[in-house]
Amino acid sequence: MTTPLRFGLIGTGRIGQVHAASIAADPETTLAWISDPFVDGAHAVAERFGGRVTDDSAELIGSGEVDAVLVASPTPTHVDLIAAAVAAGIPVLCEKPIDLDIARVDALRPVVRDSGVPVALGFNRRFDPAFASVRARVGAGEIGELEQLSIVSRDPSAPPAAYVGVSGGIFRDMSIHDLDMARFFLPDIVEVVATGTAVFDDGAREHGDFDTASITLRAASGAIVTITNSRHSAVGYDQRMEAFGSRGMLQVANAPTSLVSLSTATVVEGRPPYQEFFLERYAEAYAAELREFTKLVRGERSTSPTFEDGRAALVLADAAQRSATERVVVPVDLA
Amino acid sequence: MTTPLRFGLIGTGRIGQVHAASIAADPETTLAWISDPFVDGAHAVAERFGGRVTDDSAELIGSGEVDAVLVASPTPTHVDLIAAAVAAGIPVLCEKPIDLDIARVDALRPVVRDSGVPVALGFNRRFDPAFASVRARVGAGEIGELEQLSIVSRDPSAPPAAYVGVSGGIFRDMSIHDLDMARFFLPDIVEVVATGTAVFDDGAREHGDFDTASITLRAASGAIVTITNSRHSAVGYDQRMEAFGSRGMLQVANAPTSLVSLSTATVVEGRPPYQEFFLERYAEAYAAELREFTKLVRGERSTSPTFEDGRAALVLADAAQRSATERVVVPVDLA
Amino acid sequence: MTTPLRFGLIGTGRIGQVHAASIAADPETTLAWISDPFVDGAHAVAERFGGRVTDDSAELIGSGEVDAVLVASPTPTHVDLIAAAVAAGIPVLCEKPIDLDIARVDALRPVVRDSGVPVALGFNRRFDPAFASVRARVGAGEIGELEQLSIVSRDPSAPPAAYVGVSGGIFRDMSIHDLDMARFFLPDIVEVVATGTAVFDDGAREHGDFDTASITLRAASGAIVTITNSRHSAVGYDQRMEAFGSRGMLQVANAPTSLVSLSTATVVEGRPPYQEFFLERYAEAYAAELREFTKLVRGERSTSPTFEDGRAALVLADAAQRSATERVVVPVDLA
Amino acid sequence: MTTPLRFGLIGTGRIGQVHAASIAADPETTLAWISDPFVDGAHAVAERFGGRVTDDSAELIGSGEVDAVLVASPTPTHVDLIAAAVAAGIPVLCEKPIDLDIARVDALRPVVRDSGVPVALGFNRRFDPAFASVRARVGAGEIGELEQLSIVSRDPSAPPAAYVGVSGGIFRDMSIHDLDMARFFLPDIVEVVATGTAVFDDGAREHGDFDTASITLRAASGAIVTITNSRHSAVGYDQRMEAFGSRGMLQVANAPTSLVSLSTATVVEGRPPYQEFFLERYAEAYAAELREFTKLVRGERSTSPTFEDGRAALVLADAAQRSATERVVVPVDLA
Repeated sequence: MTTPLRFGLIGTGRIGQVHAASIAADPETTLAWISDPFVDGAHAVAERFGGRVTDDSAELIGSGEVDAVLVASPTPTHVDLIAAAVAAGIPVLCEKPIDLDIARVDALRPVVRDSGVPVALGFNRRFDPAFASVRARVGAGEIGELEQLSIVSRDPSAPPAAYVGVSGGIFRDMSIHDLDMARFFLPDIVEVVATGTAVFDDGAREHGDFDTASITLRAASGAIVTITNSRHSAVGYDQRMEAFGSRGMLQVANAPTSLVSLSTATVVEGRPPYQEFFLERYAEAYAAELREFTKLVRGERSTSPTFEDGRAALVLADAAQRSATERVVVPVDLA
Repeated sequence: MTTPLRFGLIGTGRIGQVHAASIAADPETTLAWISDPFVDGAHAVAERFGGRVTDDSAELIGSGEVDAVLVASPTPTHVDLIAAAVAAGIPVLCEKPIDLDIARVDALRPVVRDSGVPVALGFNRRFDPAFASVRARVGAGEIGELEQLSIVSRDPSAPPAAYVGVSGGIFRDMSIHDLDMARFFLPDIVEVVATGTAVFDDGAREHGDFDTASITLRAASGAIVTITNSRHSAVGYDQRMEAFGSRGMLQVANAPTSLVSLSTATVVEGRPPYQEFFLERYAEAYAAELREFTKLVRGERSTSPTFEDGRAALVLADAAQRSATERVVVPVDLA
Repeated sequence: MTTPLRFGLIGTGRIGQVHAASIAADPETTLAWISDPFVDGAHAVAERFGGRVTDDSAELIGSGEVDAVLVASPTPTHVDLIAAAVAAGIPVLCEKPIDLDIARVDALRPVVRDSGVPVALGFNRRFDPAFASVRARVGAGEIGELEQLSIVSRDPSAPPAAYVGVSGGIFRDMSIHDLDMARFFLPDIVEVVATGTAVFDDGAREHGDFDTASITLRAASGAIVTITNSRHSAVGYDQRMEAFGSRGMLQVANAPTSLVSLSTATVVEGRPPYQEFFLERYAEAYAAELREFTKLVRGERSTSPTFEDGRAALVLADAAQRSATERVVVPVDLA
Repeated sequence: MTTPLRFGLIGTGRIGQVHAASIAADPETTLAWISDPFVDGAHAVAERFGGRVTDDSAELIGSGEVDAVLVASPTPTHVDLIAAAVAAGIPVLCEKPIDLDIARVDALRPVVRDSGVPVALGFNRRFDPAFASVRARVGAGEIGELEQLSIVSRDPSAPPAAYVGVSGGIFRDMSIHDLDMARFFLPDIVEVVATGTAVFDDGAREHGDFDTASITLRAASGAIVTITNSRHSAVGYDQRMEAFGSRGMLQVANAPTSLVSLSTATVVEGRPPYQEFFLERYAEAYAAELREFTKLVRGERSTSPTFEDGRAALVLADAAQRSATERVVVPVDLA
């Protein structure tokens, strides 16, 4: 058995805590350092999962005691933290998005590339067993040529108006996961068109954002991707996919929360609502994401999405934003 | 194209009307004569579907104008009508059961056999596309050896108490369809055990009958059949089957009444209740039953259930009745 | 009971034959005249369902013996036939589309309006029990405000290349049904964007057409409609819908062709493929469409789609065509 | 937070290892001692989850260092181990069955009762979220009066012939779980009838056992329970239930192993086979069972099945065995 990888966790909010638990639970990894300017959060995590605590991420990166850094801090800090980590030669797994500003991402791009240090992006859904299985089966030719990919992604309820204001908009904040999922199947997207409206959320209206959106992507192969997004869903977190190919179709249903169905005089075979939100729906995916990143750090063959994938998703989100606001079809070049 | 078969319909109640419509709709058959002591009923049928009318079935049978007789009159008349028809050399399709008294059936048995005149029994469910498909696929070995057959059959609501009193009991009146279905798959049943209770229907209690029952049959092959019956079902007519074999399982679901499902904050993927009752559920089966009987009359290869099948189902129903009342396991010999 | 409406059927191809059968089967209607330049086709229909035959539609319209005209002839003849019928004061049910050229439709528009003669369009899917039920339930507020409508419509296989060349393209030929379905729910569409590619069909490529397409519509209310089309589908005719509202979701599944599912060591709960094509899938819808048109002719309250609906669908199809070829977002004004 | 309960685990086979993992994972419990005559097994468990090791269960019970004993050793040792533990005043969670011989169980019965020491039986399925939910909903009256309960339970494949010989037979070894499940809903069973056959397993034939069985139970309320068992299932572990009541029906489906379904030209909506076996299917149930037993030990309100439940299930299994071999209906008195 190999020595466990020592992780430095930067950021101890909701998603940071998920990663802390995954790191602690996996015998291949251990939580060595935790940093958060809100140091009480870091202490709380350390109490549950171990690790040294600091309020300064630079101390963590410079400690000489971490083999990998997991960046789960607010988006505006990502670019600098990635830069610092790769400067120190430490591999990074960074939560999406890299940044809301493509210019800052593009500035970082050669730095990452030239460093040779592995940088992975936290597109956890690629590691969901269902989506990963569809990807593998499409790759194996089980449905022939992939011609249409439909992704439905609806959050249970809209975020607070204050968050909407700093989120970068629905495309950069929420659709970015679906845009990466599209590229998981069809990396070479050449065109984006998006339609967005604000039909229920005052927060979205107030900030000129959308709460309801539809994105169409065209791939170089001619395959077409349709993404359907909403900031709310009365039936629970709605995460589905349909891969349509020349020889068949693979569909991912919502995860049932119970095996029990009820039939009565008014409705038959009704089941309880879907899962609450992403922490439940993607619990397995977060753990698998970590395992895959661990392989990357160890120099093994790994399918972790890269910095380039993170950048590509942002380029697509920017294109969707421009398309939806300027009402144009936007060609993209991800090379 | 052959000349249409001229049918004489005896009995114009609910099921008689179904058959009248089928006969009229099928270009292979025509409704020539209709008899019912309640002659207004016969006239009403004739008005819609054509045919001459009489209140006397003997006139119909003796008319020389019918090629086949369809007996849809009350059960106590079946034996004499079959006897009269075969005496006249006219093939008969008789609604189940032949009679409630096995002694009368057994007395008729050699008469039918010796006459050489085709007598078919109205076990319509054999002709349901779903059940027929399962039967064919089991026969083709698609699930290997058939080891367990489960039949669920629940009526939407209990019949009137007066009817319960003359019905012959739940086993002879209702389960008889399921007992025949068991024999459709496994003709050679060697043992019957049944449990019945009266848990909701005062009519059943009053007449010493059951409203809820479970029957287990053992086939010569070792396969086991389980029949689950209830005289009511809040969710609508409940007609399901599961054929379990050494290599797989074929299941028949209830027929949906709509392709639409509703998902809300409290229940997802709920659908409207199942079909009302047998007229809706088995509409196609009645038509197919008639087509198959027509083949039998024409001397073609036919899968119509025979007089012997009708007798065997009654023997099993009698055994179930005895088992349920005397609390014994009852060996049967259907030869 | 009222006197049956006397129909004149113009065109006896596949869809004309469907209508002939519906007219003959409905006691409210009768097939009086049949015209087709290919007069053998007309004779064949007359033999099965009755009616006088001509190879000249003018004779039919001028016969004084038809109360309504059903136009099921090739698309280029529709405008003149509608004009002739309304000139004769005879109500028309015309198969979609009115024409492939909006200019001709617009020229006919005031003629129809000023005539006061009812002209209905054959958007049969509005009468499908499942789609009609969803429409009614959305209208009744069962899922709150309608925010997103997703329509999937895939034909079993691509038409012959020769047909593709005269079809007007996938949007005017195939998507037009879905565009009308969108307007069934959200009549006031204000914007169209479409993406089309040719990924498998040489016929489409040859004629500069698409075999795969995605259309996004924006309604005045802010609701967004997504239409997913393909000219082929390995799994059978694929006709689904999802109406997503503020309080829930109504979904229309594909029609099963059997109640039977098979489970084996490699796959569980598998069912046979979906229905072959529209004649099976929309059999009930065609009959209901006719009943509703009969009401319209009789001056009763009717929900038949009108000439204006036919025009609106074509405007949307044109917009989709322009969007897909010029890569622009197209505002539309259906007033 | 309370001090963790110190567990002594007796037996480190497959099920003992499951319990060891649960004990280690639950912060309320800790693994203090482990005994197994095959001491290497005990050491292996200790290495993963901690705890002192002995080959002598008496040392464990007498150590003074265990607050509760978990008996996961072979069935013939259960009675003596329960006796020893209660003599030492230590609560016991014992795997089913208590013993294969009801006389030994009845001899132990007053000892347990008089001791006042909690003894729980490992009927894990009561703690499965799906079955527990149905039980709670039936108890809350959601489907009115419970009238029929159907349990399907099929193992993936038959055990080795050698095991069959010492298993006590299918009813005591396998059906006992379903018999307890029946009593979970309907404790007051008054009658048993069972049919068993050997249709595929030479091991069963060799030992006069059955591989296929059907059991019908009658409850004092008149409700009827049907249990369908098989020692093999090509489609995977088959664990379903249907609770049918006067106002509706609750159904438990098999647990899907994936959210993905495949549709092709030959089969639509097919999914991968069900779970392998009980370790996967009931993983959550084992952990919940332990939590509930912990409450029992702490003197809190607990729903752990008791020694009496263990005895009742054996009485029913004995009755089923007698019914199936002597072909009689067997009245039972569980008081």
